[in-house]
Amino acid sequence: MNIIIINGPNLNLLGKREKGIYGETKFDSFFAELKSGYPAVDLHYFQSNSEGAIIDKIHETGFSFDGIIINAGAFTHTSLAIRDAIAGVETQAVEVHISNIFQRETFRHLSYIAPVCLGSISGFGLESYRLALEYFLHKK
Amino acid sequence: MNIIIINGPNLNLLGKREKGIYGETKFDSFFAELKSGYPAVDLHYFQSNSEGAIIDKIHETGFSFDGIIINAGAFTHTSLAIRDAIAGVETQAVEVHISNIFQRETFRHLSYIAPVCLGSISGFGLESYRLALEYFLHKK
Amino acid sequence: MNIIIINGPNLNLLGKREKGIYGETKFDSFFAELKSGYPAVDLHYFQSNSEGAIIDKIHETGFSFDGIIINAGAFTHTSLAIRDAIAGVETQAVEVHISNIFQRETFRHLSYIAPVCLGSISGFGLESYRLALEYFLHKK
Amino acid sequence: MNIIIINGPNLNLLGKREKGIYGETKFDSFFAELKSGYPAVDLHYFQSNSEGAIIDKIHETGFSFDGIIINAGAFTHTSLAIRDAIAGVETQAVEVHISNIFQRETFRHLSYIAPVCLGSISGFGLESYRLALEYFLHKK
Amino acid sequence: MNIIIINGPNLNLLGKREKGIYGETKFDSFFAELKSGYPAVDLHYFQSNSEGAIIDKIHETGFSFDGIIINAGAFTHTSLAIRDAIAGVETQAVEVHISNIFQRETFRHLSYIAPVCLGSISGFGLESYRLALEYFLHKK
Amino acid sequence: MNIIIINGPNLNLLGKREKGIYGETKFDSFFAELKSGYPAVDLHYFQSNSEGAIIDKIHETGFSFDGIIINAGAFTHTSLAIRDAIAGVETQAVEVHISNIFQRETFRHLSYIAPVCLGSISGFGLESYRLALEYFLHKK
Amino acid sequence: MNIIIINGPNLNLLGKREKGIYGETKFDSFFAELKSGYPAVDLHYFQSNSEGAIIDKIHETGFSFDGIIINAGAFTHTSLAIRDAIAGVETQAVEVHISNIFQRETFRHLSYIAPVCLGSISGFGLESYRLALEYFLHKK
Amino acid sequence: MNIIIINGPNLNLLGKREKGIYGETKFDSFFAELKSGYPAVDLHYFQSNSEGAIIDKIHETGFSFDGIIINAGAFTHTSLAIRDAIAGVETQAVEVHISNIFQRETFRHLSYIAPVCLGSISGFGLESYRLALEYFLHKK
Amino acid sequence: MNIIIINGPNLNLLGKREKGIYGETKFDSFFAELKSGYPAVDLHYFQSNSEGAIIDKIHETGFSFDGIIINAGAFTHTSLAIRDAIAGVETQAVEVHISNIFQRETFRHLSYIAPVCLGSISGFGLESYRLALEYFLHKK
Amino acid sequence: MNIIIINGPNLNLLGKREKGIYGETKFDSFFAELKSGYPAVDLHYFQSNSEGAIIDKIHETGFSFDGIIINAGAFTHTSLAIRDAIAGVETQAVEVHISNIFQRETFRHLSYIAPVCLGSISGFGLESYRLALEYFLHKK
Amino acid sequence: MNIIIINGPNLNLLGKREKGIYGETKFDSFFAELKSGYPAVDLHYFQSNSEGAIIDKIHETGFSFDGIIINAGAFTHTSLAIRDAIAGVETQAVEVHISNIFQRETFRHLSYIAPVCLGSISGFGLESYRLALEYFLHKK
Amino acid sequence: MNIIIINGPNLNLLGKREKGIYGETKFDSFFAELKSGYPAVDLHYFQSNSEGAIIDKIHETGFSFDGIIINAGAFTHTSLAIRDAIAGVETQAVEVHISNIFQRETFRHLSYIAPVCLGSISGFGLESYRLALEYFLHKK
Repeated sequence: MNIIIINGPNLNLLGKREKGIYGETKFDSFFAELKSGYPAVDLHYFQSNSEGAIIDKIHETGFSFDGIIINAGAFTHTSLAIRDAIAGVETQAVEVHISNIFQRETFRHLSYIAPVCLGSISGFGLESYRLALEYFLHKK
Repeated sequence: MNIIIINGPNLNLLGKREKGIYGETKFDSFFAELKSGYPAVDLHYFQSNSEGAIIDKIHETGFSFDGIIINAGAFTHTSLAIRDAIAGVETQAVEVHISNIFQRETFRHLSYIAPVCLGSISGFGLESYRLALEYFLHKK
Repeated sequence: MNIIIINGPNLNLLGKREKGIYGETKFDSFFAELKSGYPAVDLHYFQSNSEGAIIDKIHETGFSFDGIIINAGAFTHTSLAIRDAIAGVETQAVEVHISNIFQRETFRHLSYIAPVCLGSISGFGLESYRLALEYFLHKK
Repeated sequence: MNIIIINGPNLNLLGKREKGIYGETKFDSFFAELKSGYPAVDLHYFQSNSEGAIIDKIHETGFSFDGIIINAGAFTHTSLAIRDAIAGVETQAVEVHISNIFQRETFRHLSYIAPVCLGSISGFGLESYRLALEYFLHKK
Repeated sequence: MNIIIINGPNLNLLGKREKGIYGETKFDSFFAELKSGYPAVDLHYFQSNSEGAIIDKIHETGFSFDGIIINAGAFTHTSLAIRDAIAGVETQAVEVHISNIFQRETFRHLSYIAPVCLGSISGFGLESYRLALEYFLHKK
Repeated sequence: MNIIIINGPNLNLLGKREKGIYGETKFDSFFAELKSGYPAVDLHYFQSNSEGAIIDKIHETGFSFDGIIINAGAFTHTSLAIRDAIAGVETQAVEVHISNIFQRETFRHLSYIAPVCLGSISGFGLESYRLALEYFLHKK
Repeated sequence: MNIIIINGPNLNLLGKREKGIYGETKFDSFFAELKSGYPAVDLHYFQSNSEGAIIDKIHETGFSFDGIIINAGAFTHTSLAIRDAIAGVETQAVEVHISNIFQRETFRHLSYIAPVCLGSISGFGLESYRLALEYFLHKK
Repeated sequence: MNIIIINGPNLNLLGKREKGIYGETKFDSFFAELKSGYPAVDLHYFQSNSEGAIIDKIHETGFSFDGIIINAGAFTHTSLAIRDAIAGVETQAVEVHISNIFQRETFRHLSYIAPVCLGSISGFGLESYRLALEYFLHKK
Repeated sequence: MNIIIINGPNLNLLGKREKGIYGETKFDSFFAELKSGYPAVDLHYFQSNSEGAIIDKIHETGFSFDGIIINAGAFTHTSLAIRDAIAGVETQAVEVHISNIFQRETFRHLSYIAPVCLGSISGFGLESYRLALEYFLHKK
Repeated sequence: MNIIIINGPNLNLLGKREKGIYGETKFDSFFAELKSGYPAVDLHYFQSNSEGAIIDKIHETGFSFDGIIINAGAFTHTSLAIRDAIAGVETQAVEVHISNIFQRETFRHLSYIAPVCLGSISGFGLESYRLALEYFLHKK
Repeated sequence: MNIIIINGPNLNLLGKREKGIYGETKFDSFFAELKSGYPAVDLHYFQSNSEGAIIDKIHETGFSFDGIIINAGAFTHTSLAIRDAIAGVETQAVEVHISNIFQRETFRHLSYIAPVCLGSISGFGLESYRLALEYFLHKK
Repeated sequence: MNIIIINGPNLNLLGKREKGIYGETKFDSFFAELKSGYPAVDLHYFQSNSEGAIIDKIHETGFSFDGIIINAGAFTHTSLAIRDAIAGVETQAVEVHISNIFQRETFRHLSYIAPVCLGSISGFGLESYRLALEYFLHKK
């Protein structure tokens, strides 16, 4: 089973930026830990601040992978193009957010990504990624 | 660890109603299976079609339980009173939805409940409940 | 043929309240007269000020009755849960209103109930109920 | 008792157009049947695709007839002038719609006609006309 | 003179819940104190988390009491049915709020209750109830 | 100097319809009186309930007359086509209204006609027409 | 017959400011000319850039004058207090505007003043004032 | 204890203007009566139709008085500057309204003043002022 | 192959009206030229300022022609009835506009016609018609 | 004559993605066919999922090419920067869409690109590109 | 070179009011310092809480001064009259704000003043004034 | 002191594009001049049409530079991701615009960037950059 986690803009600053909202762990450490916790899964990771690069990656993996876990960051609320990319590939995606986006500014309440994903998980910190992974492992 | 699942209006029709959206399993069967899968958790279940009864149950469990998993059904989008109940108790709540509410009518996109919950899980069928339970079991 | 009339909040005050809008007849007198006018129909009547009780009654009758005539009163404009209840049962419903809701405050122009009913009849006083009954008797 | 049915634009296509929404019966057949079912009523029928012709007809009949049954079709949602015509004559009007307009596009939910009519009947197919006629026959 | 105070959802948590907003006094203690301060008034108290129960109580007292003091809590902003109940009875009502609702979330700025009450008092903590009582005692 | 008064839908009912708003004088009597009061002006009058006929008349007079006085009635608020007709001819138009449209329903506050007219006169009863005529007589 | 013209903010700059919109004549010259053209009228003039001073003047003249002609300038669109002043006095007012406010920015389309005036005249340059005066002279 | 009542525009017309809404008593008579009813309070009164004068008075009293009772009249709904003045001084203010502003035009439902006041009292006629005074006398 | 071009209101003024927007060519000259350029097509032309006449023409041609090219002019933005006419016939329609409607007033950006047409061509002057014709000739 | 076709995000998936909406042909095949059909035109093609790359290409070609045919895909509705790029270069652009964007989700109805293009062609499948090319070939 | 700084309502409280937002310096001290830092400039200062007085001052200086630096305070968001005053004079104005108005309440994000000023400077504390002065000194 | 100027999309066309709005100077010439005018500052410059590249540059400089001067061009109004990048780094940013964005299309009035910047300077042409630089040099 191969799964890719795709992170959007500014998530490379995790552990460095706005710690009150996003916590203190760097994503790399978390990813290593996650990978070792699920040895049976072929887990990949991609981060970019560029909308185009994210779309390219969705196209690249979207016809062969078993699942996409996507945290599109701020693109969640502005990118119809990423929405169309997810809708256009065959692999199903799960949307995750570290913070509870419904507790933040109004313009972060709307997700263009959610309607084309299988489901959405928001607010559990980095655990959101693990829950998405759990879902892919147990779905029938 | 004691956890309560609170289901809102019409969820007693599960397995009987709008199967295209909600699936064919009755909640009772699912709950029994879930309970037996997590023997270490003292898992409770409550369903009501009445907003007042749901608020009463939140008050009753909200100062002694370790977690509330709430699917407020249609009250999600109309009940400020349930929102205030969750905000007013000490136990943390996780919001779940069976269907992906962002794929449905516009008036189901807004959740009054989400901002006062720890996090929100939507779209994974009955698996949404299990993921919420997973979260309570692993959170630190 | 068994039909149930379900009346929502404050309709128990009929004949007592805001007579300019709702007229002077009590619903009980009207119902007795209606019942005796249609002896072939097994006509039932239920009124409650509680949203939950109305949903329970829809569930109870919605898989065995031949028709539901519903005047959800003020819940017409606020209750997604009653809407979901009607959508979730098998019996078809007809929405009625005593007053012409389009002549009243703007927030009474929107009905959450109408889209899940077969049809809607508004503004004919208590005659609205009789017209709904006529419909069920003549539909093919 | 003389009653006129006034049909607005495109209703001449009935039985020919969008049968999924409007059914297969031509209005002429239905009208003949209706007329013969109510021999005591002097029942008239007028259809036009022109807003001005409809207003003229309302003026012409609106001071001598006992009732107007109007299905203004798409003009329901755009014509203030027909609204003013109905408000300006003495005969009372009842609004009817074949389809349940609340199940269709949002711009069909608003009726400029409804607030100046006595009542509104929507969603019962051609039966909507008969229910309106029933109302005029039984009103006191 | 008989007056009833009707409290809506979650106000039973007073003194226990969100103390920064609502203060530390339990309503029971306050009510006892209020009652003893106004021995000439036959002062009643009712609280419920259920909209239906509140409507029932308004109907029950609304034709015999001299005044209703209502803090509908979160129902203030969502319940047309309570609004209709107040409009439908004879006893006049005064709306009170403990917190200044205009300093809180936007969705708490709109009151469906205020337009059918005689007046509205908001922001004075539990003193809001006493001011309402003062009004009933001194009005001519 | 030749001037035409163009009246829109339902203004033929003047003196017959909604007298509280529009007064008791028939337009014909008023027009005769106006004509005799301004013998030097070649004054014409046209009324139609049809948008198309009004546009045709604007085209017909709009390249040779010295002024158009238009009361488009309910078309004021819905007809972009009349707006375009006025904008497309050479003769300048003045918009008049009998009632003060700003004291009526909100949907009568917006005029599509006003922005393409030279000016607008509203609320002076039939005097509005005379004031418009006065303007054309004195403008330089 | 005594009539007062009240001009609001910036109208003292007339003939000096934005000549493309307001023309080249100073209001003083126009007023002198107007006064001499209507010797039978006791015509007064007041201009202020202060909302309070305009309200004071409306109070001062509003119980003894035969008419108020008001061009509230930019206060037209922002001052509820001037609206209340006009509604609160006995003398009737006519609203005038030099430019056609419906051809300008959207925020100039709404007038708080118009609904409490007898009528409104807009777009005829300084002639707007004369037409208003004509009205007062001829009204019955 | 020194308290100032500040009244905004048009409140000098009280007892003279729109008596259906505001009653028949002049404020001066009411104030005299109020003063004599509370001999222990050093009660002041200020009215102005000018926003600037009201702000000046708030600045003048807002660092030495024990309370401000403000009825900003129509400025309630338009003046951010008065809001800022109240927010900028040390003395706490209570907002009062004679009429129930929630029963009036929509544009009177929003108060810019309420969020910076301690509380708000609306709808009790001139009693609203006395209730505000009561509050200042009893607050701890 | 028979194709009809249907032009809406004011398009008879082409070459005469607002030349900055619509150009200097009369439609008749253009049509003659177009017809002679496509001798194999049986090309018809109809223009009316009346909504009803346009609907009649759509009904008349809509079950036998091979294509409708419609420029509904100002009716594009206001006529649901023309929309329903196109949706109700069998012949497919292509919407054309001479000017780029997206560069004009906001109320011209919305087309009620576009969603029921096969496609839309806007902004190419009279060439828009020729491109539509090209489409019908080459479609498979 | 040199013309460039610029395709935005996800259009590289054509023939692979959402075939119900976009058809089954790959763009490369279509482009080859188009090129061979118009040997006199020097036809170029560029596709990118990156907004920045598209802007760079517009800058690069926008001062030397004879025409730009742009299908900005989902960027149509979100990219002010592409709009500014087109507005900032000398070459004129024509907007094309494969599907009829007015039949899709509301957020696809608004085009930021259309107002700065010469014209817009939408809904003709891949034929939309050919029609745009036709336009450039025949414009004078 | 003569420049005037015009400060609007409540700015006289600077250094006394809401120090978290506006800082601790009184404007007088700052002005003295500024004046001595730019001996070559004839620098004036005017503050008023009255909209009318500010307009008068703009008229007084607006035809002879070399620049106006205006911080209209809360009038920024409500005063069309000050906007018109600035648009009506010849001297160019620069808008300044002490705080970053875009970080504050939504109703402070809209400036009626900005569109008629040459430019706008917001968020630099009292430095905003100095930057505006710098601009006037260096502009060509 | 090291400061970076970051310019967004299309600003590379400066001096070439829409000169009426942006002026005739190329940014390179301006930058050279600016650099030589402030020899004490280590001034950097970066321009990109790609959102991702701008975010990368903010990350790269945002923990070591003394200031960021950012003109995000059209991204100002659409990019939450750039907003988050600025909010996520330590270096403070100042927003600049060449044109007065409040005089342009409505969709350019909203800045997502402004609320996370220290301050905003708009409308002074290229001088806007110099004023921002002045600010960094003088701030304490």
